[in-house]
Amino acid sequence: MDANADADTVTKTKVTALPGDGIGPEVMQATMRILEAANAPIEWEMAEAGAEVFKKGLITGVPRETLDSISRNGLALKSPLETPVGFGGKSANVTLRKHFELYANIRPVRELPGVTTPFSGRGIDMVIVRENVEDVYAGIEHMQTTTVAQCLKLMTAPGCERIIRAAFALAAAEERKHVTCATKANIMKLTEGLMKRVFEKVGPEFSEFKQDHIIIDNCAHQLVIAPEQFDVIVTSNMNGDIISDLAAGLVGGLGIAPSSNLGDHAAMFEAVHGSAPQIAGKGLANPTALLSAAIMLLRHISAFEVAETVEQALFITLAEGKNLTGDLSPKGHGVGTAAFTDQVIANLGRSSNLPSRVYSKLELKAWPELTAHTEPDTRELVGIDVFLESGLGSEELGRSLEEIAQDTPFRLNGVSNRGVQVYPATGGQTFLVDHFAARFMLKQPIPLNASSANGQAEISYLVQRIGAKFAWMHIEKLQRFDGKDAFERPQGEG
Amino acid sequence: MDANADADTVTKTKVTALPGDGIGPEVMQATMRILEAANAPIEWEMAEAGAEVFKKGLITGVPRETLDSISRNGLALKSPLETPVGFGGKSANVTLRKHFELYANIRPVRELPGVTTPFSGRGIDMVIVRENVEDVYAGIEHMQTTTVAQCLKLMTAPGCERIIRAAFALAAAEERKHVTCATKANIMKLTEGLMKRVFEKVGPEFSEFKQDHIIIDNCAHQLVIAPEQFDVIVTSNMNGDIISDLAAGLVGGLGIAPSSNLGDHAAMFEAVHGSAPQIAGKGLANPTALLSAAIMLLRHISAFEVAETVEQALFITLAEGKNLTGDLSPKGHGVGTAAFTDQVIANLGRSSNLPSRVYSKLELKAWPELTAHTEPDTRELVGIDVFLESGLGSEELGRSLEEIAQDTPFRLNGVSNRGVQVYPATGGQTFLVDHFAARFMLKQPIPLNASSANGQAEISYLVQRIGAKFAWMHIEKLQRFDGKDAFERPQGEG
Repeated sequence: MDANADADTVTKTKVTALPGDGIGPEVMQATMRILEAANAPIEWEMAEAGAEVFKKGLITGVPRETLDSISRNGLALKSPLETPVGFGGKSANVTLRKHFELYANIRPVRELPGVTTPFSGRGIDMVIVRENVEDVYAGIEHMQTTTVAQCLKLMTAPGCERIIRAAFALAAAEERKHVTCATKANIMKLTEGLMKRVFEKVGPEFSEFKQDHIIIDNCAHQLVIAPEQFDVIVTSNMNGDIISDLAAGLVGGLGIAPSSNLGDHAAMFEAVHGSAPQIAGKGLANPTALLSAAIMLLRHISAFEVAETVEQALFITLAEGKNLTGDLSPKGHGVGTAAFTDQVIANLGRSSNLPSRVYSKLELKAWPELTAHTEPDTRELVGIDVFLESGLGSEELGRSLEEIAQDTPFRLNGVSNRGVQVYPATGGQTFLVDHFAARFMLKQPIPLNASSANGQAEISYLVQRIGAKFAWMHIEKLQRFDGKDAFERPQGEG
Repeated sequence: MDANADADTVTKTKVTALPGDGIGPEVMQATMRILEAANAPIEWEMAEAGAEVFKKGLITGVPRETLDSISRNGLALKSPLETPVGFGGKSANVTLRKHFELYANIRPVRELPGVTTPFSGRGIDMVIVRENVEDVYAGIEHMQTTTVAQCLKLMTAPGCERIIRAAFALAAAEERKHVTCATKANIMKLTEGLMKRVFEKVGPEFSEFKQDHIIIDNCAHQLVIAPEQFDVIVTSNMNGDIISDLAAGLVGGLGIAPSSNLGDHAAMFEAVHGSAPQIAGKGLANPTALLSAAIMLLRHISAFEVAETVEQALFITLAEGKNLTGDLSPKGHGVGTAAFTDQVIANLGRSSNLPSRVYSKLELKAWPELTAHTEPDTRELVGIDVFLESGLGSEELGRSLEEIAQDTPFRLNGVSNRGVQVYPATGGQTFLVDHFAARFMLKQPIPLNASSANGQAEISYLVQRIGAKFAWMHIEKLQRFDGKDAFERPQGEG
């Protein structure tokens, strides 16, 4: 599909289109037809990704030409991609997100006319802004023993700041009033707590918005009790994954949910749903989600009027309920993708009872590729945590480690099992797995500012002694930055 | 409150009662009155925990006498506890859970008569079985740099097996038909994947139940789209935290939600709601949640008939809507805690239209305190991951680390930033934080079976060389158990 034959004088924006797998090509074609009929100022550049690419042997599922096309255009509209079982390990969707550092996942959740749910009539209209690249999604996992698995949950101050600023920028662009930060800061004080602290630090710059923090489990609860209270929710990756799908369910489900993925170098717009292989190729798919993603894309390139025309045509089509696809119709009354598409096109120029929101350009702060490394004023090494494998009971293990620490610059502070102190005994009835964390504190903290090599000899000496008797698999330095402990204490430590 | 004056011949079971904070004492008193009126075979032993205890300076919030009482009785009924800001770091609730290793959090979610929600009439009746002590709740957190926070997500095979067996045991005890395991195994293959694998391994022993696995975000979605499809859901700690509060919202909210926390040595029954300080002491609180928890307790001690009598009295009270507390009444028509309690007592012996489910004793498998350490047949050290802090760009850093590895038994495999490979470059536009993972592979794997000291010298030599130039803070051994890599690859690694 090239430039419109009746080329108008408007400059067209090039967008990479990924028709993807399953129903992907059908909903892509429908979306393109509607956008063409609406004279959307877009020129498509078709590109491959997904199942066929995996099957050709490329384990990322995304060929170089596709990456180059998105790099060049900075914009992509993407249908669902499959990662076929047995080909490559990582999903093509995650590859695209990480390759272009698309850190902000924007998930609008708005009650649509004609789409009846248990929450209809309550005027749900919120956006969930999900951090899209950090957290447990870093995928850094190590089996610590044959039975104990570990995943690193990483959250960073610049990562939190980026997504929080994106949430305020979005609130400004959509004339929203209220930004809620949802975390599990009460339990994970350093990681989830970091997002809360950054929110509280950055928030005052955006004092025109009502701001609050909510614990993520309460947020999930409130989303089903009183969803209309939310306007913009900003949250970390895993939390956002769960609540964005929850919230989509409140207004009709993933089948009609669009999303955008924004970064400094590119923006990708997509349907949230999967490739629905069971109805692929039958002309039955509902293109609403991808069309809604395309409307987000139009607004992203400041084509606000065309976006509103298409959105109102979609709204009135849904509201009137004529020629809807099977998923939105009473049984036996659904039409095919083509008839629905024709209906939306026929409705171009008409307005629904639900006005489009007022939008202006979403301006994301630009970030340097390399974040400044911040050296604290003072930095001390105060100890190390050594994670080791043992079938011993905690008393025997603790005493043995105490002995090992003798004649070293360290003393054993305690031993914990899955975060609960088991030596010295607290009287708790902890079930022991074969993975212990032994915390050794330096009798005398060692300043680290002068040279990172400081403390090496001491650590090495202790670890050698431990390794002679126990199988360790993981070491963490315990540091103090600017006089403040940069680590948490285990449960039960006095 | 001692043994009933009209002591009948039934042997009474001693239960530790924690009246707790805020509205806690009021709902506890109401619950005790109803149970006494129903001749429940319970003798209460009152114990302290919560805000007052923290304020006396005990940083756990739970005095020794309380721990001893629960240890002795093995049973507790607990009202909400507060962790006042500024006293102690960890919550008293978490302390109790971890001290007694109460690994199974049982959250029944059932539509109640008279409690109207958007989902009323759909017959929601499920139980969420949440793992209660592992996962990110281990609270093991380390600042890796001044801007990068890390939390360890730990999941263990015995931990997963315990909770999965508990879910099947519960399904059997409540004559349920269908157990769904909800994880994020598609992203976290080693940790969340472990729970899925254990479910698939243990499941066949319980072939009388329908069994399936669902991705947690889809589970949250389905819970608001079609909650009536679920019967028993078993899931990991963080996932369970979110979806159990979500699910409670579907049937009327946390205000009326009970839960139990089960372990090998004790069981604790509680209301899920908080201490509601704003209405504390006013005689307005709704005791339904704690009363429902007490009903669970009665069934736990096999007092099935009394449990049903109390449950039916509660159901009919709610159904008839006479003398309900303010939270369940039209504005201005609520009564106080005492009047509601009197009404439930007056209804003892009557039955509602909603039958109680059929229950039998929930039999949990007993576990040894110390799990067997499983040594793989072969164990090799194949490399190490060194996490280090640097303000360098990835090319410069990568080349420098490659140089360091020269003349060591290792070669640099690659460098990643938050799980995405940045050296050798993949062309991706990764935003760099000052925390890198350098993966060094041994040119020749080292067998570890013979002695855990094997490889020590090699690691020590490499780490010394790295430490001379870079500030590392975290090391992970890369092992191969029985010929299988015990670690995941970063995104982008070819």
